[in-house]
Amino acid sequence: MSVEIICVGTELLLGDILNSNVQFLAKQLASLGIPHYYQTVVGDNPTRLQEIIKIASQRASILLFTGGLGPTPDDLTTETIAQFFQTPLIEKPEIIEDIRQKFAQRGRIMTDNNRKQALIPQGADILPNPSGTAPGMIWQPLSNLTIMTFPGVPSEMKRMWAETAVPYLKSQGWGQEVIYSRMLRFRGIGESGLAAKVNHLFASTNPMVAPYASLGEVRLRVSTKAASEAEAMTIIEPVAQEIKKIAGLDYFGQDDDTLAEVVGKLLRDRQENVSVAESCTGGGLGAMFTTIAGSSDYFLGGVIAYDNQIKIALLGVNAEDLKKYGAVSEVIAQQMALGVKQRLGTSWGLSITGIAGPGGATDNKPVGLVYISIASPDGNVKTIESRFGETRDRDSIRFLSGCTALDELRRKLLNR
Amino acid sequence: MSVEIICVGTELLLGDILNSNVQFLAKQLASLGIPHYYQTVVGDNPTRLQEIIKIASQRASILLFTGGLGPTPDDLTTETIAQFFQTPLIEKPEIIEDIRQKFAQRGRIMTDNNRKQALIPQGADILPNPSGTAPGMIWQPLSNLTIMTFPGVPSEMKRMWAETAVPYLKSQGWGQEVIYSRMLRFRGIGESGLAAKVNHLFASTNPMVAPYASLGEVRLRVSTKAASEAEAMTIIEPVAQEIKKIAGLDYFGQDDDTLAEVVGKLLRDRQENVSVAESCTGGGLGAMFTTIAGSSDYFLGGVIAYDNQIKIALLGVNAEDLKKYGAVSEVIAQQMALGVKQRLGTSWGLSITGIAGPGGATDNKPVGLVYISIASPDGNVKTIESRFGETRDRDSIRFLSGCTALDELRRKLLNR
Repeated sequence: MSVEIICVGTELLLGDILNSNVQFLAKQLASLGIPHYYQTVVGDNPTRLQEIIKIASQRASILLFTGGLGPTPDDLTTETIAQFFQTPLIEKPEIIEDIRQKFAQRGRIMTDNNRKQALIPQGADILPNPSGTAPGMIWQPLSNLTIMTFPGVPSEMKRMWAETAVPYLKSQGWGQEVIYSRMLRFRGIGESGLAAKVNHLFASTNPMVAPYASLGEVRLRVSTKAASEAEAMTIIEPVAQEIKKIAGLDYFGQDDDTLAEVVGKLLRDRQENVSVAESCTGGGLGAMFTTIAGSSDYFLGGVIAYDNQIKIALLGVNAEDLKKYGAVSEVIAQQMALGVKQRLGTSWGLSITGIAGPGGATDNKPVGLVYISIASPDGNVKTIESRFGETRDRDSIRFLSGCTALDELRRKLLNR
Repeated sequence: MSVEIICVGTELLLGDILNSNVQFLAKQLASLGIPHYYQTVVGDNPTRLQEIIKIASQRASILLFTGGLGPTPDDLTTETIAQFFQTPLIEKPEIIEDIRQKFAQRGRIMTDNNRKQALIPQGADILPNPSGTAPGMIWQPLSNLTIMTFPGVPSEMKRMWAETAVPYLKSQGWGQEVIYSRMLRFRGIGESGLAAKVNHLFASTNPMVAPYASLGEVRLRVSTKAASEAEAMTIIEPVAQEIKKIAGLDYFGQDDDTLAEVVGKLLRDRQENVSVAESCTGGGLGAMFTTIAGSSDYFLGGVIAYDNQIKIALLGVNAEDLKKYGAVSEVIAQQMALGVKQRLGTSWGLSITGIAGPGGATDNKPVGLVYISIASPDGNVKTIESRFGETRDRDSIRFLSGCTALDELRRKLLNR
């Protein structure tokens, strides 16, 4: 007993649109606890669509279709499904009436090609579309097979899903048990490094533990099926706690937490504030801090010191040191962090100076070399030398620089 | 002779991530003129993956796989493919050496689970991954079937596609007739407004003209199929020129041009430079400028004046005016732009102050109200009052504020 999602549309095969419908439906199925093993995309081609229906109806018991319900000649999902099950199409007068009214509301006359949308297979029920003209259907062509169709327009599909499909699926006994999960977020450790540390947990089937990696972050998803969130958490929490203990300071937050948010909370709790001095990130670190609504409580501002003259004039960096050590150096990073902390009068000062590339490298300073300094309330400065790797692109190096600055501040705040 | 895309990953079935890889590959196949009729998504499950390989290898001659190449136990694309074709896996020492070096560059030790990524089927070629640890493969297990595998990380997959897969496909005779296109980019006009102006061109089938809209930008794609770029451009260019003429200053660039790049070129040509004073964007405008490599030629830096005290101390904003007009006002935006221009000694000064929300609105200052000032070399200041709408979220308002500042500077630079 499982669901298969089938998306119909040549525009998907041409890459003209991003298939966000399938992600929405997948998430919904997961949260309802409905197993779902395959997603298929096929063009507006009846022969190939029939092939897909044949394959899918052998391996799934509910087929969800999106796309191909509209009024134009290339919309042929409904008629192809009917043909496959050798069932005649019936014109539903209530659909025609509904479409006519929607046109009238918008001050338009219904054109004749819209009648096509009123045809559904004999025996199928209408799945109403409150916001658009093309309705879907719920149909059981075989005793062990249910078909549901939705238009491709995301807003229409989502509303029909919530208002009609979910109540229907629940009435069929689905959604009694739902998948709950906790996403744990880590920084400062790679996917393979973290996996090696928690390897013994991957064999667990309840809860399941699965790793994910993206730029600047590794995640572990701990999930289980349960009748309620409270019940799920009794299964998830012990394992989540064990992982947090193993990961130590490399764990930074869970679910929707971001580094900027976590750091912001720590600063707010301590009634401290921060300013930034940015060279290669050009304002990116400030932008990260201020992504968070309410960040004005602890983020005062900073200096974008892209040019060396600005480092001297606005941050008090020593001109001779600039010549001697170069802008990308521990000495200058320190002076920038202290300079911004002092001039803006904040508890903490963060600085970033590095080579984001692709140009600017020298023999002993490769692309990806970045110095990040943290000036503490007591006036001490810690500097991190990061080498993000010459193979990374400019955007990634700048992004990772900002993440590292936030993360190092987080560790400092937690470690005091 | 056609391609099938197979994406492997339980995270796709759970809806945890949006499948942007498949859109990228679909677009690439379309532009190379390679037919592609099906896309399939399957979880990290060897039995089901084998089923998919069986079906796909009967209806396509090239199978493109993404995902499941990493070091963790649930990464099993390569071994499942090898099993299906009953071929042993061979450990490639050159891959292990490459992974070891990548870990060393980042100052880490390669954990043992990484060795898994060095196993590829006997007879397969390595598809190198310059930016990540998991390489892919190109393999012809049957005379009429080619398999190519890519990691799921989009940046790695895209680079491998461009650097290795495309040359390979071209060497196999694909891409003789290719779809060439010119993307024209617009700002300051909506999709329907632009569409109404160029409506007569949408009926054209050669070249085809299609509109696209995204946050802060409208695009028109002018495309045609041809044997060479030169031939394509004789068909595309006359229409592109007509569109540019119709759009006037609302047209800002083509293909991969960004606003920041276009503005940067204009500044460089005029040997002028710019500084920024940012409140609600918190560094985002500076980050946009410095996305462009070489932006140090014309971007000197700026002040992130998130807190009002910083506006006074570092930009010379008048404390009484701040009280009288509020930080989000034309008067303060002007003083910020003039202040940063003067203190950093640049030709131009740009400022942004606004309410990004969700909090901070007052009766006469709604969320989305943003003032953007441009101080010119002659000392004049122009201020734009933008209302980005109360329904937009914080990120969008901040992004649109940065785009508008860049765009207004572009218009100023072109209009002098």
